[in-house]
Amino acid sequence: MKHHSLVAAALAALVAVAAAPTANAQSTPAIPGYTMGQKSLAKAPFTLADLESLKKTLLFTEEDIRYLRMSRAILADQHEAILDVWYGFVASTPELVVYFKNNKTGAPDGAYLGAVRKRFGQWIADTADANYDQSWLDYQYEIGLRHTTPKKNKTDEADSVPLVNFRYLSALTIPVTTTLKPFLAKKGASAADVEKMHAAWVKSVLLQSILWSYPYIKDGQF
Amino acid sequence: MKHHSLVAAALAALVAVAAAPTANAQSTPAIPGYTMGQKSLAKAPFTLADLESLKKTLLFTEEDIRYLRMSRAILADQHEAILDVWYGFVASTPELVVYFKNNKTGAPDGAYLGAVRKRFGQWIADTADANYDQSWLDYQYEIGLRHTTPKKNKTDEADSVPLVNFRYLSALTIPVTTTLKPFLAKKGASAADVEKMHAAWVKSVLLQSILWSYPYIKDGQF
Repeated sequence: MKHHSLVAAALAALVAVAAAPTANAQSTPAIPGYTMGQKSLAKAPFTLADLESLKKTLLFTEEDIRYLRMSRAILADQHEAILDVWYGFVASTPELVVYFKNNKTGAPDGAYLGAVRKRFGQWIADTADANYDQSWLDYQYEIGLRHTTPKKNKTDEADSVPLVNFRYLSALTIPVTTTLKPFLAKKGASAADVEKMHAAWVKSVLLQSILWSYPYIKDGQF
Repeated sequence: MKHHSLVAAALAALVAVAAAPTANAQSTPAIPGYTMGQKSLAKAPFTLADLESLKKTLLFTEEDIRYLRMSRAILADQHEAILDVWYGFVASTPELVVYFKNNKTGAPDGAYLGAVRKRFGQWIADTADANYDQSWLDYQYEIGLRHTTPKKNKTDEADSVPLVNFRYLSALTIPVTTTLKPFLAKKGASAADVEKMHAAWVKSVLLQSILWSYPYIKDGQF
């Protein structure tokens, strides 16, 4: 793989995406492919009881939910700046940007990157909302499917690689939450509250990455 | 499952294990089943180059290695106290202690818990050592196999359940590293150093749990 040219093309695509008019995810009535709560979604193969067990194992408590919700207002007007950092990281990491590669050109697919970015902004709001109901659970399963062969590329009609490799899914918990921390601190919250919001985000993102992993796991072993 | 009696039995088994004479893992020449560096081990299906890519995605740098190694001396004489906390968490969490259940008695298997505990102590030292060579890589693969059907129970000749479910493996990153933090702070390190040691531990444990997940993942999707 030509890493340098891929990175350069990714950065170019990123700039194009960032320069395009961006809607505020929270006030947009319909983000293409954002299907939380829609009847078309398959029921998740894991249950709300499974979720409770997983939360217990993750030491995820009501306090974490409170701190996630505290982060919502803090992050609300920073989505685009956060996404710039996350997309910058993906674009500069050849191991990651390859999952956005256009099969025809061999370069990162700007339209595909842009379509995912809109849903990624909404994901910040949804993670901060911390509403763990059946709709949320079903959508986590859908997100897992969209990273694996059953549904990769389909939502955005992208002509790209057929799979995001499992190993990078939970690994992304670290860059996502590490780079989020300065944004949590930008609105005057105390250092203690920033720490607790950050810890809650780490647990939530790890929890989600575990649920997203379902389609990768051999039958009966999840 | 009778959760309360299982927890009570687990706590009893834990007390029995803790009360038994415990060797210092670091000075013990041979811990049963601890096979790091042994030729009997299969070669890992992931390479040192894969590891480097994963470290990059996890923002895992030379600084993290330095902070892991700083933690080694701090933790050295606290292994048993740390293991008491970790075993207490497992024993009081029915979703976790079930993986140590003796198939005949239905109760947690004290001998099995004790055998794993000795290797768990060594794992603290090995994680703090942060020596990522081929021997380490092969042993990570072995650890993954020991959580799944190919090798679960075999090392300790335990008569227990055939699999640790995938979902709990990376989830344990949180309780392991959250409960470790007070121990990192007990020897006078600055608050900033404790934070950095903790962050390095989170990355390392998550990294290891990703490698341990290999046997759970469908062919070609890791």
